[in-house]
Amino acid sequence: MSASSEFSIIKQYFEHITDTRHDVVVGIGDDCALLQCPTAQQLAVSIDTLVEGIHFFRDVDPEHLGHKSLAVGLSDLAAMGATPAWFTLALTLPDVNSTWLAAFSKGLAELAKLHHIALVGGDTTQGPLTITIQVHGFVNARQAMRRDGANRGDGVYVTGSVGDAGAALALKQQTLASSALSTQELQFLYQRLERPTPRVEIGKKLVGIASAAIDISDGLVADLGHILQKSGVGAHIELDRLPYSHALSRFTAQREQLALYSGDDYELCYTAPPEHVAWIQEQLKGQCTRIGIITDDRGIVFTRDQQLIELTGTGYEHFSHKC
Amino acid sequence: MSASSEFSIIKQYFEHITDTRHDVVVGIGDDCALLQCPTAQQLAVSIDTLVEGIHFFRDVDPEHLGHKSLAVGLSDLAAMGATPAWFTLALTLPDVNSTWLAAFSKGLAELAKLHHIALVGGDTTQGPLTITIQVHGFVNARQAMRRDGANRGDGVYVTGSVGDAGAALALKQQTLASSALSTQELQFLYQRLERPTPRVEIGKKLVGIASAAIDISDGLVADLGHILQKSGVGAHIELDRLPYSHALSRFTAQREQLALYSGDDYELCYTAPPEHVAWIQEQLKGQCTRIGIITDDRGIVFTRDQQLIELTGTGYEHFSHKC
Repeated sequence: MSASSEFSIIKQYFEHITDTRHDVVVGIGDDCALLQCPTAQQLAVSIDTLVEGIHFFRDVDPEHLGHKSLAVGLSDLAAMGATPAWFTLALTLPDVNSTWLAAFSKGLAELAKLHHIALVGGDTTQGPLTITIQVHGFVNARQAMRRDGANRGDGVYVTGSVGDAGAALALKQQTLASSALSTQELQFLYQRLERPTPRVEIGKKLVGIASAAIDISDGLVADLGHILQKSGVGAHIELDRLPYSHALSRFTAQREQLALYSGDDYELCYTAPPEHVAWIQEQLKGQCTRIGIITDDRGIVFTRDQQLIELTGTGYEHFSHKC
Repeated sequence: MSASSEFSIIKQYFEHITDTRHDVVVGIGDDCALLQCPTAQQLAVSIDTLVEGIHFFRDVDPEHLGHKSLAVGLSDLAAMGATPAWFTLALTLPDVNSTWLAAFSKGLAELAKLHHIALVGGDTTQGPLTITIQVHGFVNARQAMRRDGANRGDGVYVTGSVGDAGAALALKQQTLASSALSTQELQFLYQRLERPTPRVEIGKKLVGIASAAIDISDGLVADLGHILQKSGVGAHIELDRLPYSHALSRFTAQREQLALYSGDDYELCYTAPPEHVAWIQEQLKGQCTRIGIITDDRGIVFTRDQQLIELTGTGYEHFSHKC
């Protein structure tokens, strides 16, 4: 089978993800996609690469990998409060494996459909397994949530729970023992690592409410640190308030460290001024937790039981840097 | 040196490429770039990946590679008649080599500056050398040149000369001997392979003139074939009219095959109705050549000295397929 025949097979796995959006003038099949941008809105774009052996294990379920490849980008759109519209896929594959492709495209397509985001272009090449996705979304002009808007007195919030993906990674790497966990709890943690839920709906709701936002990919401390640095402020974090999942809470000795420093949770960390506390409590009930407050002092001060705590941990530093 | 310190070094090589465009609301440094799209125009996007060992040799000059990585995308914008605006860069590197990075970013920056295209986002990861660039441009609504607009009686044109990049590749692979060429001619051919010139200005001029267009990445026959297939027409190509460079014309036995079937030239192939012949002759004098005519019959008929010629060659099929 010639290379070009093989790659026409690949096309069949992805063409159905193109969806039918009225704003896609020309999708796959020309030199460029042609897209109609809405007026009075700004285009939000983000590009992310996942590399085998760095961002995922060789034996990962390809359906999960398809899901995660898109989830990572959708999470960036969520952090800006943008509504997803289109994505492109640059897929480098060592060979053409139809079983793998069917599963990968299924995971990708299901998440794409859920968020009504259309595949509008791509490139498939031969080489070591590498997946690059660029997402495109829209947000009203001057309303995007940025990293530089946090102010003294704003509350610091996180959605969902943090540390789960880090625990799953540690379990896989056998630096954490799973003996205390039920099968369900184990599965929950692995799902959190391999099929993260991008907080797109929460992100959209937070437009006009949050003063700053970021998604947690490198770890809570590292990512909150980006908000603080860009905003020129500090934070006081109450460790007793960190939101643990039921499964993570079983690791009493490690949960705090995992929640603060492990990455890949794809929750949102955001700040909001005091006047929005009631709105957040009502509209996002059970979906986010207030963990602290923005201060004038640079850096993060941690307390537990109202006592100052010195932490020595460092953020999760994978060899990957979103610039 | 920690991974994050290394990657802050990487940032310094690319931040200056960000340019100062008034339509970049937020560039590098947040979860997404925020971009202002012009009204009444459509967004044209294209994503391309170059993989070491597949699309370029391990020993390629990194400055040339930086140039070519962006040129490939600019060529796609040119084929639609779009004006370049922004690009994103997903760079996977085996290690952080400052000499390599300085040269790569120099080649990239020079071409970016020439076309006033700003780097608005990116991702750097560790892994086998892979470069993915997405370009974004604008074209007036309903004026983009597409592949599906060719009609019976339209002329078939190519810009510049074809086959040069293929000859350079064959010289490098030693399937072609360089003995007949001067050093200058050799350099010319290598430049054509490693530092292709995207025909952005010609593409913009052709808006409203060309009925269909494509850039020549897979070879003239293969790429013209895409226009024919999408437009539901055929073509008659006069082999005597193929435009050879001075250097390529020296390979009297191989030049025709190279011009028809070798890829990577990044010239434009376009069709235009008879009423625009005079405009093309005047406005694009010396920049393009008419090589044939669109017919009703499917497929391509070749003639030489007004005699029908049967060709058995096939297009350049690298393991890469733009979908």
